[in-house]
Amino acid sequence: MELDQIREIAKSTPSKIVLLVMDGLGGLPHPKTGKTELETANTPNLDRLAREGICGLADPVSPGITPGSAPGHLALFGYDPLRFTVGRGVLEALGIDFELKDGDVAARGNFCTIDHCGLITDRRAGRISTETCAELCRLLDGFRLDDVSVLVSPVREHRFVAVLRGEGLSSELSDSDPQAVGAAPKDVVPLHAIAARTARIANQFIARARAALASKHPANMVLLRGFAQYPNFPRMSEVFKLKPAAIAAYPMYRGLAKVVGMKVLDTGTTIEEEFATLAENFADYDFFFLHIKQTDSAGEDGDFERKVRVIEEVDRALPRLIDLKPDVIVVTGDHSTPSLLKGHSWHPLPILLHSQWCRADRVEDFSEKACVNGSLGRFPATHVMPLALAHALKLEKFGA
Amino acid sequence: MELDQIREIAKSTPSKIVLLVMDGLGGLPHPKTGKTELETANTPNLDRLAREGICGLADPVSPGITPGSAPGHLALFGYDPLRFTVGRGVLEALGIDFELKDGDVAARGNFCTIDHCGLITDRRAGRISTETCAELCRLLDGFRLDDVSVLVSPVREHRFVAVLRGEGLSSELSDSDPQAVGAAPKDVVPLHAIAARTARIANQFIARARAALASKHPANMVLLRGFAQYPNFPRMSEVFKLKPAAIAAYPMYRGLAKVVGMKVLDTGTTIEEEFATLAENFADYDFFFLHIKQTDSAGEDGDFERKVRVIEEVDRALPRLIDLKPDVIVVTGDHSTPSLLKGHSWHPLPILLHSQWCRADRVEDFSEKACVNGSLGRFPATHVMPLALAHALKLEKFGA
Repeated sequence: MELDQIREIAKSTPSKIVLLVMDGLGGLPHPKTGKTELETANTPNLDRLAREGICGLADPVSPGITPGSAPGHLALFGYDPLRFTVGRGVLEALGIDFELKDGDVAARGNFCTIDHCGLITDRRAGRISTETCAELCRLLDGFRLDDVSVLVSPVREHRFVAVLRGEGLSSELSDSDPQAVGAAPKDVVPLHAIAARTARIANQFIARARAALASKHPANMVLLRGFAQYPNFPRMSEVFKLKPAAIAAYPMYRGLAKVVGMKVLDTGTTIEEEFATLAENFADYDFFFLHIKQTDSAGEDGDFERKVRVIEEVDRALPRLIDLKPDVIVVTGDHSTPSLLKGHSWHPLPILLHSQWCRADRVEDFSEKACVNGSLGRFPATHVMPLALAHALKLEKFGA
Repeated sequence: MELDQIREIAKSTPSKIVLLVMDGLGGLPHPKTGKTELETANTPNLDRLAREGICGLADPVSPGITPGSAPGHLALFGYDPLRFTVGRGVLEALGIDFELKDGDVAARGNFCTIDHCGLITDRRAGRISTETCAELCRLLDGFRLDDVSVLVSPVREHRFVAVLRGEGLSSELSDSDPQAVGAAPKDVVPLHAIAARTARIANQFIARARAALASKHPANMVLLRGFAQYPNFPRMSEVFKLKPAAIAAYPMYRGLAKVVGMKVLDTGTTIEEEFATLAENFADYDFFFLHIKQTDSAGEDGDFERKVRVIEEVDRALPRLIDLKPDVIVVTGDHSTPSLLKGHSWHPLPILLHSQWCRADRVEDFSEKACVNGSLGRFPATHVMPLALAHALKLEKFGA
């Protein structure tokens, strides 16, 4: 169903929804035990929610497709990630809490190494330290070119964000990064006539940066890619008639929540602190996105046991959430991050939805295996929001 | 997900995929036993793959829709069969290994019977023998009309293929076959201005054929339908970055494999010989489509027991495939052909996917009933390729 169609039937009510996202929750079985991280963890509270609620397996993008963090979350927020895309430059900016303004054009930058012929010898400049990156960014930050300011902020190691700020800019630009060693950095080319001036400014910036970095071997050049402007997505308040709030310790997820119009709440970074933030603000919003990063971090590190412990920690914190008596609780991930793969994967997300109005299935515990036979079946994650709204009695009948 | 989007994330790797298609695999329960052909067959190897892998039920076109061989296969190859259609004339040509050239216009032909008023009395000319058909085709083959050659080749019984070969032809033509007894054959009409000359030539051919067949009662006239040109589909090598090969004993399936750019391997026609061809060529390609026709033939003949025996023969051959250690094995059909219906049916396809990176479900054997509860759920067959590529680690992350 299209957002415009949901907008027609969504209504504001006092009922409350909590969407608890354990980042990278889905896993793969440990070779020794045949059990995934979630199946290994002792999770009496999640199991109770699964038993009383309904379960299933969700695909954020499409079966077989490994989602990045943005598509994974946008799908859970109800936005088709194949249509609502966030450019790489904007994502990098979101990831460091950089406040983008309307009209800004953001690009992801790499410091790189070029030889005396101008050919790239290392696309990551030997992965310089984050401290060195910050120093170099200070050299480049604040150039003014033809009434446009260039704001340069470090991310991590060789990565930075470059933001062009001024009037009449366009992000319809090609990358300067040739994504290959031995090639020269490419000129930024306008992909539409409207972007001609922005391309000129971007190329001027690159030339100025090269001059400023000449003596800074190995980081003696920059590569830019993924030019993008802040997306103009419909807000959750308009589409779903919600007053939504986000609780997330990491900038990227706060940024993604902002993109769909959530209020980002101040919070501490531990799981305990995030649950406390939920309790403190529970009266003031009717939708909460609560993001737990540590599951994904453990999976990315290939640390099966740590991922198990994080899941158990979340389970222990759950009674604080349950005691608030939200009308609907959804627990899932934004993608799978099996410790065995040390990265995001395509495996579908285990999901549970708990509400007074569930027609409970026969699932007895919250695990990937059990979710296979849940009544939600295997379904696109974009259905999660309509299902949550429905169980919170926030959707009118469609048609007469 | 669109092919263009998959193209963006597909990458070439050394990992190998085998897609084993038992044509018409799905069945219906025998009234005496309550078991389908697949459930009746003794299949220890398929059961093992199902137990270790993931299972589900796939719909090639859409639930309830009975697929022809072309849509059934195109869906498995990842091409939406509602968008990627192959004209009837081209399919007939593929079915007899007729080598179509770019620009050729192919039509399916019937020999038919007309009375002295020119009205059709039998659309199939009493189902003349294939030998008679071949004789008559020789009478019509090789006409030249306005610099266009007409190539006429027998198919089976009253059916033949007519191919117009020359410059500037178009297949935007109506059928001459009125699909009714008692009516006169219709003129071929151009559906676009560009096809006016081709229509004229087609009508000239029909008039010449009628004259040549005047004394050949009951086969004294021809009917043409399904004018079509060879489709210009994206190749699997471009979209999926694969080096694909096809092993198929029947021309139609070799033809469908060629349409998506597979290399067709020489093979014998028995199941044993086809598996031997796989082993001999295993080093040289990274995707294999292995087609078994005999399951469908038995189903079409309504021979439940023979279909069971064919499935068991494939199961006995399977260790040869498994021993090659492909990274991903997919086993399914292109449609169901229940012996009870003696023809293709709409019932979804049992499917199993086996790989090191499966998150195994609780399915214990390969059967229609067990597949209902597999983790793939019920899904469109066009997802089979992305799932196979994902489990072969041939897809990059979508979005950041």
